[in-house]
Formats: sequence, C-alpha cells, structure tokens
Amino acid sequence: MKKTKRTIEIYDTTLRDGAQGAGVSFSGSSRLKLLQRLDQLGVHYIEGGYAASSKRDMAFFREARKLRLSHAKLAAFGSTRRRGVRVSADDGVRLLLEAGTPVVTIVGKSSELHVRDVLKTGRKENLAMISDTVRYLKERGRQVFFDAEHFFDGYKAGAEFAMATLRAAVDAGCDGVVLCDTNGGMLPHEVFGITSAVTAALDLPVGIHTHDDGGMAAANSVEAVRAGASQVQGTVNGYGERCGNANLCTILPTLVLKMKKTCMSAQKLKELRDVSVFVDELLNLRPASRQPYVGVNAFAHKGGMHVNAIQKNPCTFEHVKPESVGNRRQVLLSEGSGKSSVLLKAVELGVGGVRKSSEELREILKSLKDLESKGYAYEAADASFRILVKKLLKKHKPFFELEGFRVIVEKRGKDEPCLSEATIKVRVKDEVAHTAGEGNGPVDALDHALRKALVRFYPEIAEVVLTDFKVRILDPEEATAATTRVLIESSDGESSWGTVGVSHNIIEASWEALVDSMEYRLFKEEEKAAKSRKRRRKA
Amino acid sequence: MKKTKRTIEIYDTTLRDGAQGAGVSFSGSSRLKLLQRLDQLGVHYIEGGYAASSKRDMAFFREARKLRLSHAKLAAFGSTRRRGVRVSADDGVRLLLEAGTPVVTIVGKSSELHVRDVLKTGRKENLAMISDTVRYLKERGRQVFFDAEHFFDGYKAGAEFAMATLRAAVDAGCDGVVLCDTNGGMLPHEVFGITSAVTAALDLPVGIHTHDDGGMAAANSVEAVRAGASQVQGTVNGYGERCGNANLCTILPTLVLKMKKTCMSAQKLKELRDVSVFVDELLNLRPASRQPYVGVNAFAHKGGMHVNAIQKNPCTFEHVKPESVGNRRQVLLSEGSGKSSVLLKAVELGVGGVRKSSEELREILKSLKDLESKGYAYEAADASFRILVKKLLKKHKPFFELEGFRVIVEKRGKDEPCLSEATIKVRVKDEVAHTAGEGNGPVDALDHALRKALVRFYPEIAEVVLTDFKVRILDPEEATAATTRVLIESSDGESSWGTVGVSHNIIEASWEALVDSMEYRLFKEEEKAAKSRKRRRKA
Repeated sequence: MKKTKRTIEIYDTTLRDGAQGAGVSFSGSSRLKLLQRLDQLGVHYIEGGYAASSKRDMAFFREARKLRLSHAKLAAFGSTRRRGVRVSADDGVRLLLEAGTPVVTIVGKSSELHVRDVLKTGRKENLAMISDTVRYLKERGRQVFFDAEHFFDGYKAGAEFAMATLRAAVDAGCDGVVLCDTNGGMLPHEVFGITSAVTAALDLPVGIHTHDDGGMAAANSVEAVRAGASQVQGTVNGYGERCGNANLCTILPTLVLKMKKTCMSAQKLKELRDVSVFVDELLNLRPASRQPYVGVNAFAHKGGMHVNAIQKNPCTFEHVKPESVGNRRQVLLSEGSGKSSVLLKAVELGVGGVRKSSEELREILKSLKDLESKGYAYEAADASFRILVKKLLKKHKPFFELEGFRVIVEKRGKDEPCLSEATIKVRVKDEVAHTAGEGNGPVDALDHALRKALVRFYPEIAEVVLTDFKVRILDPEEATAATTRVLIESSDGESSWGTVGVSHNIIEASWEALVDSMEYRLFKEEEKAAKSRKRRRKA
Repeated sequence: MKKTKRTIEIYDTTLRDGAQGAGVSFSGSSRLKLLQRLDQLGVHYIEGGYAASSKRDMAFFREARKLRLSHAKLAAFGSTRRRGVRVSADDGVRLLLEAGTPVVTIVGKSSELHVRDVLKTGRKENLAMISDTVRYLKERGRQVFFDAEHFFDGYKAGAEFAMATLRAAVDAGCDGVVLCDTNGGMLPHEVFGITSAVTAALDLPVGIHTHDDGGMAAANSVEAVRAGASQVQGTVNGYGERCGNANLCTILPTLVLKMKKTCMSAQKLKELRDVSVFVDELLNLRPASRQPYVGVNAFAHKGGMHVNAIQKNPCTFEHVKPESVGNRRQVLLSEGSGKSSVLLKAVELGVGGVRKSSEELREILKSLKDLESKGYAYEAADASFRILVKKLLKKHKPFFELEGFRVIVEKRGKDEPCLSEATIKVRVKDEVAHTAGEGNGPVDALDHALRKALVRFYPEIAEVVLTDFKVRILDPEEATAATTRVLIESSDGESSWGTVGVSHNIIEASWEALVDSMEYRLFKEEEKAAKSRKRRRKA
C-alpha cells in the first residue's frame, strides 16, 4: 500500500474469509492451486488462513512457504492478543509468527459497543491489545496490517474511540489500517464520508474490507477508493459468510477499466473470467450466471431490439468490452428474437451459408417461433439450435435412426427398490443395433442403452458425459399431463454443449435432448475430420 | 411519484424487463399470480409487459384489466412513435392504448450517440418523437412516464441534449421522467451527481432505472434517491437481461429500514422473503442463497466465534433484524435449533399430541433432518409433513399397501407417438386391486391406474385433481442419475395440499408424492367422519 503513487493494491482473502461461506470448502491441494493462480493473476496480497483456527491452516502455511510467488505476498490472519495476557505468552500471536509469512493481518475491535459486549473489557485494555500486538509483530520483521473490525459502525457510534484504535495501531508502527464493514450494513455515502475522514487524518495507507449483506460491498469498496483508500480486500466471486465478501471480480475491472487506477495490467485483467470459473471448479460450485463482468450471461442479449442495437453499436447494451475481462458476447434465442439474432447466432456457432435476406433465414425463423411456442428454448441449448439449422438447411445427415425404444420402471413391493430398464433399437449405417441398459431411473437407463447401441459405430460417444440435467414443467396447471422441457448439458472434456427436448412425456423429452447431444458430438467429429482432410489436400 | 411528500414509489418491472433475463419465462397464469402478489405486497406500479412486442403481452393486459388491484396501478410499456410516422398512425402507440392500463411508460432516446447510431435520425425528430407521443397519450387520459434510455451515458456525452429530451417530455405534460442506466455501467457517485442536477432543474418527479452490469444497480438506485429521485424501478430478485435489473428485494429494505423513507410499511416488508421465494417458485429457478436480506444464507452463521458473538449481541454480525424482511437467523451445523418451529408447524397443521419436551418431538426432528438431508423439502408440502408426523406418532393407518407397479413407455418409430402404460397392484381392506392405466406420460399413466384401484373403495378419490407438478433436480451434476424431487399440488375443490417425493428415479419420486396426496385426502375424509360421529354422540 503506497499512498504516494496511489497504486490500488488487491488483498485477496478467498482462502480465509471466503472459506466462511456456506458450501465453500477447499481441499489442501486446491488451496495451493488457488494460491498460485491468484499470484499469476497479479493480486498483491493473498491471505492464506487464520493461523490459530486450525491445524489445516498451519499445514497450508508450511506448504505455501515452499512455493516461490512471483507477484503476491502471502499473509496470515489472526487476532490481537487476548485481554489480560502478555503478548509474548499469547498462543494466537505465537502461531501467527509460526506461519512464517512476510505479512500478518491482525483483527481488533474498533467499536466501543463490541469492546463492551463481546470482548467484555475496557477501552484502555482494548487499545493496549492492539498496540502490544502490532509492536511485537513489527519487532519480529513482519509487514503488519490492522483490520479494524466493525470500524464504520464504531465510528458512527463514537468517532473519537474508533480513531483512537487506529492511532494505537499506527503509533505501534503498523504498515496500514483496514476499515472493515464487518456486518455489511453500510451505505456507499457513509463509507465515502468516514473513509475520507480517516485518510485525511492518517498519514499511512488505508484499506477497505466490506461484506455484501446490504448488496453494497462492491459499491462501498469503490467509494472507499474514491475517498483515498489504497488497498481493497475481497474474494473471488464474492464468496464469504452470509451474503459474501466484496467480489474482486466486480471491483477489479471497475478500478482498472472505469476508474483508470493503477492496479492490474489490462492484459492480466483478461484472465479474470478464467480465474472466476477456476475457483467455482475448485469448489465444485455452480457459477453465478448473472455475475457482473465474468458471469456467462454478463454479455448475453435476448431481446430482438437489443440485439439489433448491439450490432449497430456495441456500447448501447455493453458497458465494457466482454474481451477486456476474458468474457464473450452471447446471443440468446427466444420468442421475440428477430432475424438479426438468429443470424448472429448462426455465425457465432459457425453454421455457414445463411444470409440475412435469404429464404432459408426466414424458414429458420418460422420454425424457431413454432418450436418455441411448443415450449422449446434454445438459450441454453446451442447444440440443439445448431442441429435444427442444419436440418432446415438440409445439411443434416442423421447418424442413426430410431426404430423404437421401450422403458420399463418396475417396483415389486413397498420397500423394494425401483428398477429401470430400457431397450432400444436404432438403425446405424444400414445395420440394426438392438441393446438394453439399466440405470438409476428411466432416463439413465435410456442413456446407457443408447450409448451401447452407438459406441460400436462411433467410439467417440464413449467420451460424452452428461453433466447437467434440468426438468421444467411448462404448464404446471396441467399437472401430470403437463408439457415437460428437458435441458441436458454434455461434455467431452474438451468442450460442453446444451440440448433440449420437449414433450408431454418426460421420457420422450429426455430422449430428444439425449439424441441431440449425441448427434452434436458426432457432428463435431465429422467437422474435425473434414478440416483435417482439407488441410491434407492443401499440403 | 409525489415529489412534495417525497414518498418513494416502487415501480416493479419483473413481468417486462425481468422477463428479458436468461431462463426467465412466465406462463400466462403465473403472470396474473405475480401481479396479484405484488399488489398485495404494496408496490405502487406494476409494469405488465411490452404492448407491441407480442400477442401474449396483450392477452395478459386483457386478463389483468379484469382484476381489481388494491394498491398498485398497472402500467404498459412501449416506445415513442417511430421516426417519420404520425403518432396517431403508429402501431406501437395504438397497442399501448389498447392495453387499457391507467399508466403507460414510454421509452425514448436521450443520448445523441444513440439517436445517430441506432435510431439513425436527427436531434429534432427525436425530440418530436418524445413530445408527440407523450402529448397523444396524455390527451387520452393516461398517466405517462418517460423512460430516458441511456440517460447517464447521454448526459456525460452531452448534458444539454440529454436535458432537452427530458424537457420535451415535461413540456408535453408527462407525469414523471425516469433516468435509465441502460447498459448498467454507471458508478454511484456519477448517478448521484447527474440525478442531483436533474432534480434541481426539473419540477416534477424523477425516477431511477438501473441495471447490474457493474454490480452497482442497488447502490446506484439508493444514490439516486439520495439525490432526490422519488421512483425506483426494479425487479424481484433482480431478474433481468445480462446481469439483471436493480433488485427490489435489496433496495426496498434499504429504503425502509436504513434510510427511513416512506415507501412501504414495516409490516408489509415482512412479506419480502415470501415474495422472493414465490417468484423463484413461479419460474422454477433456484433461489440465490447469498441474496442480500432474503437469501437463505443472508443470516446464516458458520464461524463458531461469530455464533458466539451473535448470541452476545446480534448486531455484531447482522445489519438488520432477519424478521424485518421475513427471514430468519440460521446457525449452520448446529443441532436442536428447529424444535420450536417443528412444534409450531405440527400445531398449525392440527397434528395433536406432540409436546415440546417429548421424546416424540425429538424423534420427529431427527427424522426431519434425516429426510431433509436426502432432499425432501416440506415448505410446500404440508400434507407430506403431516403424514410423516402421523407415521412417527404411530397414528398412521395405511389406507392401502403397494404390492407393485410397472410403468412402460414405448416408442415404435421416430415419428410415432410415445405411449405410456402403467399397471398397479395394491392391497386395500384385504382385497387386491390390480389395474392398468394409460396417460400422456409415465406419471400420468401411474396416476390413472392408482385412481382406478382406489376409487372403488374410496369414492372421494374421484374428486382429487392434481393441479401442479414440479420437478427439481437436486444434484444436477449427476446428470441423468441425479436425485429428483417432485412436488405435487392437489385439490378437491374445497382445499388444496402439497406433497413431496424424492428418489434417484423420477417415477418413484412422483409415485411417493402421488401416494401422499391420495392418503392426505383419505385422512381428511376420516377426520370428517370422526367429527360427525362425535357430534352425533353429543346430540
């Protein structure tokens, strides 16, 4: 945190405060992976854990010390010494030193209410706890940050005491103070006002640490920077307790692209979406599709009018360039999609030979509207859309033809397990394959039988894994006779694609989506083969 | 929008702008349900749709006009007249009037860039498009709002032209102007500055309409209110295109609880979490667990230290009282916290004989936790919960016992219809009923077969109608082998009830929910009979 140049430094606490979130848990090796990924991205500090809280955190620090970080400094988190204990005799402080990190961040109380109600001690002892701990750690060569817990609430209740806690840290030699909105309840103008008062009063770097309970964490961080703060603490994807911490994936591009702060290079910023997805994968959590900047829908356009405007001038509905954060524009197809969206989509998917004025485009549009009125939705089913277009352009050569299938679900008694069996008959390359499969449910059984039938002819089918399965009842008032839409997401380890099926019968809807998924994979193979043939011919 | 009293009015656009979100699609009846729920909540305006965009939107307005709203005014959305067209000859404007709503909101350009690049016309024609349309609609008795599209970008590029577009609307008699951050890219301080300039210059109500592309939608709305805006436009759960619209579930409690604005009563605000969950259920979308105020984790505490502090003083880690928005505190990974709520629920459902200290209550709690960890959810399945309690209290006398069922789904060729047949064998009152049924899908067939088997013994089964059927995949990553939760809603014309089933097999999960539904109806009959016997004995 260098105040003079006003570089804004990023302090990542995904591994510590982020891990407090419901459902967030890092394995030992994934912690190390994230540490390296964040270092590569170019954040300035990485908080690895709470030294005193668990043996796992200490084990992480032992491993992390062995790594050579190229950019970031590793930080350990801990509390000030306990009340009434000599700092040299405090276990937490000892562990903080044992973590062996160049940076330590200690949290202390800065609100009189909390000193009284939670700590159950007096003002004087609280100030001594802060200064004793800072001094002790500084004497042992650490870079020390003081996290002022509940600072804003404390300041509002009594500015004089809150400032005294910061001064205790400053006078003891700390390298920066961090103002925390611990319960996440502040409003942006309050953060701006109070941070301005602090940066005016103190001659050392000031940081900001916010939570999103009021939905203001990113705004509050930005306002603090405007008020002179030079360190921003947060987590990737905003993970953290309750509503989460300040989301670095939101704040970073705002600082760099909009506020033109020196913070991270434009080149590095392009890795942001990658890092966001990487963390979700490490945690096996579903990415937030609407997440600003990095979400899969952040640059997805649905309305026909909007798509039209985007073509004329992208900044009409895009506040920054999608590529600047490693994201991309997407056109969602839906009712109300006009010609331009369909055309854009076709181009995006690499379906050639469609022109804006063509008869074919009109036909695609007509079919699309017809299918959508039946309940098909292509927003999450690129692959089905592509197959549809190929069919309409008569470029679709079916890889197999269904002769029939039968699914049997049977239960032999109240406490007996439910058995599912499927038989399937398909014609492939003039042969008939008749196979059977069982599974955890009727669709699983059908999937197994279909694979068995196809894999002999198309070995690449073995690579296809179904990664997501969604069922939606379209007119629920029709109850069990309602129309069902099934969306399937598949992957072959290289890319992933979505397909859709619609029917009154959930099995049939699932069948449609399954078939599209397999066909899409076969198309991919076919195109690959065609490309390499072309290349060979050229050579 | 009354500027004098500075009541902050809420303008909900979930049904229009919210429906632009990926995955957001309302069925006809769910639109009407949401309209009524929002009216009941107490928002001031509800935008029902884009009159000119689809026949479905016009059909909605026809139905909506028949409803008597108690608080909200219904609004239709549309554009200013097209360039070069007489307003009286403009189809969009005609449809806007045909919608027959008391309020119309028209969107027009307020940025020179967009007038030039998207509209491809000049300044003068743009201003005429605005004033012609406003005047025409005012003359026909409508309350008219002018949505100034891209206002903030436009103002930054040229304040004079942006203000001229607002003045054109004001001079033509509009009732309010709404400043739109259409691409969602503004920062809070910019919104504050520009909105302040507008409210200082104009003597009529000013509204704010923001998008969340920069993660600032809620903060920007709040800053606009601080700058004098008196109408806030947004959507429930922030649904909307790309990253979504301003989230009313975040803004409403901020305005009421933190900024003490006159906007909605504290009593009504307690319905907020209900409304949030209601919309997710309507859309069959997974609720955002970290959503501020209303998310299931918004007041969930994980860290042991935090839980301890919370017990000493809740405001340490809670910025508002959870109950103030109808939410509740949750301690993750703690036992025994649900006793009183289970008891309350049992009493509410009229299941007698459970006392707070009883062994039975402990057992119910244990089973409930066990079942919930398997994926059962009882919030919308009162009837299943009641049957569960009866079973555990050994008060459950099965009305029938399953000996077995078999469901066959068969397809005989690519273009042949899919046939579903179910056979079922149940033991009722020492007799065995073996029946067959067919249907639109496997569950429909099963339903028909089960009814046939039971109706001979229990004629009241004939009255049961399944009114809703919901399928949710609980661990979608398991794809077709995932756990499935089925929720069924049933009615007998007198009352309605919900039941739940969970299994890897969708047929089995549906079967469970079906059986609970039938049993619940039979319980009802039994209780009625018992009551009338009692009455007769007394007489």
